[in-house]
Amino acid sequence: MHAIDLSVYLVLDPDLCGGFRGMIDTALAAAQNGATVVQLRAPKWKKRALAECARELKTGLAPFHVPLIINDHADVCAAVKADGLHIGQEDLSPADARAVIGPDCILGQSVSNAAELKAVDVGLVDHIGIGPIYSTATKTDAGPQLGIEGFAKLASHKPCPVVAIGSVKATMAAELFAAGADGLAVVSAICGQPDPGLAAKQLAQAVFAAKAAQAKLSSCSQIP
Amino acid sequence: MHAIDLSVYLVLDPDLCGGFRGMIDTALAAAQNGATVVQLRAPKWKKRALAECARELKTGLAPFHVPLIINDHADVCAAVKADGLHIGQEDLSPADARAVIGPDCILGQSVSNAAELKAVDVGLVDHIGIGPIYSTATKTDAGPQLGIEGFAKLASHKPCPVVAIGSVKATMAAELFAAGADGLAVVSAICGQPDPGLAAKQLAQAVFAAKAAQAKLSSCSQIP
Repeated sequence: MHAIDLSVYLVLDPDLCGGFRGMIDTALAAAQNGATVVQLRAPKWKKRALAECARELKTGLAPFHVPLIINDHADVCAAVKADGLHIGQEDLSPADARAVIGPDCILGQSVSNAAELKAVDVGLVDHIGIGPIYSTATKTDAGPQLGIEGFAKLASHKPCPVVAIGSVKATMAAELFAAGADGLAVVSAICGQPDPGLAAKQLAQAVFAAKAAQAKLSSCSQIP
Repeated sequence: MHAIDLSVYLVLDPDLCGGFRGMIDTALAAAQNGATVVQLRAPKWKKRALAECARELKTGLAPFHVPLIINDHADVCAAVKADGLHIGQEDLSPADARAVIGPDCILGQSVSNAAELKAVDVGLVDHIGIGPIYSTATKTDAGPQLGIEGFAKLASHKPCPVVAIGSVKATMAAELFAAGADGLAVVSAICGQPDPGLAAKQLAQAVFAAKAAQAKLSSCSQIP
């Protein structure tokens, strides 16, 4: 298992960020302001551009110790030696993905229902994304929205750390951490915002407050 | 260098073949009738389906000793242990691709002009595809058509074996081999034909006749 801090998980979107340069700028502004993970996701891009962007992100994020995760493309992940790969249910199987990225790379997987959650192989997968919490324009092939209740139901059976994803906003942090989230994954809450750094800071503050409240609750509940 | 017989190089097209099952059937019919290489190319497909199709093709082609080449996706190639990978100019760089597929895998690269040809690194790349000979509906992002003359001009500087691609038909075999081709790569000359096996056989016969004519010419030219 590769434990990383999933608290504030930024998924980049090239359209919202305004292309290659906008993705780099958004990622660095977010990392400077509390993002703990950055994922490069550009499903319409060719691999040459993805690898170039990934290398620039990796270099830029290194001083912040923020891991870079590549969406879908295990080959790009392996070629640029990114920290991790994130796969969906139609991407390479976890076993195939592991064969390409090796044992030391972080592997995340998306699940959207109980059957997919049950099938998660924690011998291969380090963490999961559960969603969509609410339907989203940034991923049109996502399953039906779960709502906070649906998320809580799935998260109560989580076999490994979990991020909530799908139109997630800072205002939902308390509810989602109470429902079992280990982190919030966002796209449009940061990408394309007037000030992505400020948006990341506000999200990070909401997440830290929610985590502190959870920690207090759980320590109280341990008093006999 | 990994030498393979490029003579009759089939590039599968899922739309023309009628989907997954049609691709398998077309590949096997072609292999039974003289195709010497099969490439899996399905740019709109997700990797899970690609890997599944690749595994079925690999198993099906093995008895014919016909190598399976994967288009673009080095990760799928590595995961299914295909014989080779084929990359375009916007796919992973040859160095990145080699890093993923390893030294023993075949690597082909597409080139469409003199600058791209000059940049081919034969320390990494085993063979090249030069095209499009004529413009084609099966690859809308291809460069301007070269014609036989344009192909001949490029092929005269070939640093490694070369296949001609782009609306190539059996009737062009003599001209293209005379112009320096080591093989003909086809999509619609086989995929979607009423009888793909027969189409492959006719192409293979034209190629063998063209190669025999070339061999005779070159042996005559060596007589002092």
